[in-house]
Amino acid sequence: MAADKNFIEKILTADKRAVARALTIVENEDNGSEDILKELYKHTGRAHRIGITGPPGAGKSTLTNCLVKLMTNKGYKVGVIAVDPTSPFTGGALLGDRIRMQEIGLLENVFIRSMATRGSLGGLCKNVVEACEIMDASGKDFILIETVGVGQSELDIAQTADSTIVVLVPESGDSVQAMKAGLMEIADIFVLNKSDREGADGVASTIRNIIHLKPPAADGWIINVLKTTGSRNEGIEELFAEILRHKEHLLESGYLSEKRKNQLNKKIRDLVNSRLEVNFWNNERRKELSDKIDMILNRKNDPYTFAEEIL
Amino acid sequence: MAADKNFIEKILTADKRAVARALTIVENEDNGSEDILKELYKHTGRAHRIGITGPPGAGKSTLTNCLVKLMTNKGYKVGVIAVDPTSPFTGGALLGDRIRMQEIGLLENVFIRSMATRGSLGGLCKNVVEACEIMDASGKDFILIETVGVGQSELDIAQTADSTIVVLVPESGDSVQAMKAGLMEIADIFVLNKSDREGADGVASTIRNIIHLKPPAADGWIINVLKTTGSRNEGIEELFAEILRHKEHLLESGYLSEKRKNQLNKKIRDLVNSRLEVNFWNNERRKELSDKIDMILNRKNDPYTFAEEIL
Repeated sequence: MAADKNFIEKILTADKRAVARALTIVENEDNGSEDILKELYKHTGRAHRIGITGPPGAGKSTLTNCLVKLMTNKGYKVGVIAVDPTSPFTGGALLGDRIRMQEIGLLENVFIRSMATRGSLGGLCKNVVEACEIMDASGKDFILIETVGVGQSELDIAQTADSTIVVLVPESGDSVQAMKAGLMEIADIFVLNKSDREGADGVASTIRNIIHLKPPAADGWIINVLKTTGSRNEGIEELFAEILRHKEHLLESGYLSEKRKNQLNKKIRDLVNSRLEVNFWNNERRKELSDKIDMILNRKNDPYTFAEEIL
Repeated sequence: MAADKNFIEKILTADKRAVARALTIVENEDNGSEDILKELYKHTGRAHRIGITGPPGAGKSTLTNCLVKLMTNKGYKVGVIAVDPTSPFTGGALLGDRIRMQEIGLLENVFIRSMATRGSLGGLCKNVVEACEIMDASGKDFILIETVGVGQSELDIAQTADSTIVVLVPESGDSVQAMKAGLMEIADIFVLNKSDREGADGVASTIRNIIHLKPPAADGWIINVLKTTGSRNEGIEELFAEILRHKEHLLESGYLSEKRKNQLNKKIRDLVNSRLEVNFWNNERRKELSDKIDMILNRKNDPYTFAEEIL
């Protein structure tokens, strides 16, 4: 049985093999997945979850790497969840920067997991929240969730993370694009990476100006723009200090518990809704849909009437 | 009553006011929304739906504009659905290029509608498919669906459109980024816009090389890379010819009906699932969740057990 006491005990003591196995079971929704999560749940809630997002090429993996090294040097235990776009076509071959991450994965207090996105086009995969729970229960102090890709994933990350870092780079008018894409709304911390490049100061002050235009956050948090150069490990101490500052702020303002409550609310609703769907679409109903879909395609029935009938 | 015969008749004859009103009712899910869609459904299925997507700044609006002008010059009736990211913060103020679109909106056979994304971070809004149905029933030959933003919206657009055009620009290493973001998987037609800029030929051939690496499509379609310069109206004839070629291909290969069947299948499932959720989360169950969420937050219960109980 997947959730036997010994196995759970091993996860709680951060046994790498047990954690890896639990993550696999949960990611694949294998038998016993839920028993594990049930057992672990009461041991969760301590880790601080940090989302790292931004456009492709902004250097998110490098920054994650730097942060993990710094955190472990300071004695913290760290989990990393890297969400890859699984392209059946690219097969992830472009993601060579993942290789560097394997190095830090060998460190004692670090656990790294790559997860595939389901839809292949960005977006957090379904079980990222559950993967966080496992890492959390295994005693990690910080969990970094890095998303490659843009769009929906940002919304998801903001709903999953306690602190969201948006990484931009000086070139390519990213600041304006970020606004268009809604990145401005989810950032707790802005990082201008590769800030040794030309135009960095200009972009940083543009972002600052935009932030000033924004109505102040409900919890009174003021967003800072930090400059880093991940490839040279520059600005990482400052970034970590800012993360701690945000963590403190969340605790002191009481906003952390509100955030967690919203996250939990969403999680439960998602959980219930996906069960409702699974329960509803049994073989019989699936057959009914597949029997009648041609009639609907041929306009002899319509989707709305069919939906009423089947419900 | 929203779906009275006169109103439906007006929509079917492309009365702009009636179409606009129907779109508003459906977008807001106002009373009668479904009656309208039910009535119109049997008049749908004729329009060819073209998704236009790509990273911000690629010139999608300009291209859409050019295509609409060309299509109407050729006597076609055209609908445009522009999906804006509604940022409560930016308020859409950056989308000045929408203004140009208002010009073509005045043309007799053109109907333009901007729709807000729900989550504000890209992604098609819920009722884009329904908006397509209204435009389709109103006799449009082509419906162009333009998404601003990247990520999830691409997946959605590929599931909604018959032909998907991915627009890239020479600069900023978009070709590689597009692969990372999964754009390569959904394109039926690639457009390299702003191709008067430096490096256009190089990028075009990079994209071609990548396409050659890709396993051939199930339906035998071979993706072309076209060069356009929207601001000078260059390459638009060729783009339209390619759209027609893809449309023909879909018809001849029988793949169109397969595609439509998949779209319909998804639509019905979404429709049923969202009702299941609405029906389930009645006041009583919402109260139960809100009563117990603090217990779960305090680890006195867990979300999985709660989900089982409430189900």
